Amino acid sequence: MEERIYIDWDLIKNFMIDVFIKYGVPEDDAKICTDVLLESDRRGIESHGLNRFKPIYLDRIKKGTLLPTTKIDIVKETATTIVMNANNGMGMVASHKMMNMLIEKAKKYGMAGGTIFNSTHYGIAGYWTTMAAKEGLIGVTGTNARPSVAPTFGVEPMLGTNPLTFTLPTDEDFPFNLDCATCIIQNGKIEFYERMNKEVPKGCVIDEEGNLMTDPKKILTDMRAGKAALLPLGGDGEETAGYKGYGFTTLVEILSSALSGGPFLKDLSGIDKDGNPSMYHLGHFFFVINPEFFMGLDTFKKTAGNILRELRASKKEKGHDKIYTAGEKEYLEWQKRKEKGVPVSKSIQKELIDLKVKNNLVNYHFPFE
Amino acid sequence: MEERIYIDWDLIKNFMIDVFIKYGVPEDDAKICTDVLLESDRRGIESHGLNRFKPIYLDRIKKGTLLPTTKIDIVKETATTIVMNANNGMGMVASHKMMNMLIEKAKKYGMAGGTIFNSTHYGIAGYWTTMAAKEGLIGVTGTNARPSVAPTFGVEPMLGTNPLTFTLPTDEDFPFNLDCATCIIQNGKIEFYERMNKEVPKGCVIDEEGNLMTDPKKILTDMRAGKAALLPLGGDGEETAGYKGYGFTTLVEILSSALSGGPFLKDLSGIDKDGNPSMYHLGHFFFVINPEFFMGLDTFKKTAGNILRELRASKKEKGHDKIYTAGEKEYLEWQKRKEKGVPVSKSIQKELIDLKVKNNLVNYHFPFE
Repeated sequence: MEERIYIDWDLIKNFMIDVFIKYGVPEDDAKICTDVLLESDRRGIESHGLNRFKPIYLDRIKKGTLLPTTKIDIVKETATTIVMNANNGMGMVASHKMMNMLIEKAKKYGMAGGTIFNSTHYGIAGYWTTMAAKEGLIGVTGTNARPSVAPTFGVEPMLGTNPLTFTLPTDEDFPFNLDCATCIIQNGKIEFYERMNKEVPKGCVIDEEGNLMTDPKKILTDMRAGKAALLPLGGDGEETAGYKGYGFTTLVEILSSALSGGPFLKDLSGIDKDGNPSMYHLGHFFFVINPEFFMGLDTFKKTAGNILRELRASKKEKGHDKIYTAGEKEYLEWQKRKEKGVPVSKSIQKELIDLKVKNNLVNYHFPFE
Repeated sequence: MEERIYIDWDLIKNFMIDVFIKYGVPEDDAKICTDVLLESDRRGIESHGLNRFKPIYLDRIKKGTLLPTTKIDIVKETATTIVMNANNGMGMVASHKMMNMLIEKAKKYGMAGGTIFNSTHYGIAGYWTTMAAKEGLIGVTGTNARPSVAPTFGVEPMLGTNPLTFTLPTDEDFPFNLDCATCIIQNGKIEFYERMNKEVPKGCVIDEEGNLMTDPKKILTDMRAGKAALLPLGGDGEETAGYKGYGFTTLVEILSSALSGGPFLKDLSGIDKDGNPSMYHLGHFFFVINPEFFMGLDTFKKTAGNILRELRASKKEKGHDKIYTAGEKEYLEWQKRKEKGVPVSKSIQKELIDLKVKNNLVNYHFPFE
């Protein structure tokens, strides 16, 4: 593994906010975006945090495919629903406003739902559903994404990795948080196998003819060329029920665009008809459910907690001494990182120093300088 | 394959209604239950239709673990939510009332949600969500069930096969209908492999130590003894993301009981502490979302239809000339069965004749008598 150095959470937070501001993001918005990205690092999901700060956000702002100021139009609003146009601004800023509004509606009316169109990458899906769970509500979200997943019996990357995400309040120190793509593995995981010099498990990726691929280097090259596709959860064909994962991926694709009438599938590639970079036009959906409108939050939390505790206490497989529940590993990771700070790899260290110099943020001093 | 004879839909429908009535089910309820069971046969899902008429419904009524009359108590109702006690009556009757009420609420308020406790098997989950889709609404449901699925790194059958089901209206002749258990395969599929004298695909079932099992006969015996467990969608361990399927199964387990505070996991085994048959105390949840409260039903249907058509038109894997979307195979099956009738195997033929004789329903004449 490459050498990683831990940076203090406040140091990196303030630095990121200041960089975002230098890129034209208003201060309040910069705070939101920074918190979303760092929440990913807090949970140990490094693929969606600081790692993405430059390539997925700053570079795109520079390229003009992501607008630093987010003009939010509320296209439609009822007592329980919202349709929002994010006008190609920061998806995280629009999603933050959306969730705050839906939380208020769900508190009043028991249920609420919203959709955003003309949006951009909204960070980890679980951030939004956790906002609901912190208020004693059930959060549900999903988003479409650049096409990379093939349908069952297909070979073309058609669907996004499309997370279907739920966070439920419990009586434990952390909520039940199921935050996962509906395919088996994602780009970040393949890069991980490449770094470890390991084969990708059979049944996660196929080539143009549908043959299973395991060489991570070749997979990454071919995926960039549209010549390899990820497989949905459940794997290849029908034998181990890959059609179920494909169904969930399609479900998220539909809910992410059909509630607003926004674009989908290949129109989300970020490249226009002439091969030039284009706006992303992503779509997201959000639902919030209030247990107080059923048998009450305490009942909900206690039942959920009891289920999770019984699962953990059940008989373990040979060679394993622990059964986890969704969100537990991320919570445990945060306990470890709270004091240590955020781990920063060599390449990200370089990125941060470059950003500091270019933006003249001379007040910041990193331990690796 | 064993010899199957097709019976006219009306003949079998009327017969089933009359048998249900003889078992004490009120006529209107008998009609609902018959329609739910036969809808499964219409879709070609034989595991949940006529096959289950006697063992899962009639035999249980006789045994006293399923009450033929369904006393429904509405424990709580708000503008958008309902909590219902089915008092161990017919789960299908309670679910039918629930969906009708939620459909009305979603038409008025945009969103609605409900939960039922003290319920029994509610047939195919997709029946309930299809009720919503027929009215231009999005339907979501799930249910807990007898424990048979092991958590990731566990070996004990703890969770139910827990379907997570969505039906979405489209502009096609049939809706998008994702109606599947959150494990890889179910009992019925294992019985199918046994009849075909084929091995169960590796990675679907484990024994008490976590070893993969493939012999269908041994699996069926060991499952009955609680010595084998089904694996969640995604398979064994974490390598092909079995923890995601396990997460979805757990999600359904929580939503099915926590909204009402009802029982869960091992308390759903249908056997009490002394080893005697007990009530099932199942729980279900239902959500209905109205696209008219977003950008409209027509927009929703057209976008959904376009996504499905583009998926089907995408490049096929070597050896496959068709890509399906969720619910399509079931729709095509219905086109075939519409005229032919419902296929009835030798063992079910015998069951039907027995039921006719025992209940003195001499007006019915089956083609196999």
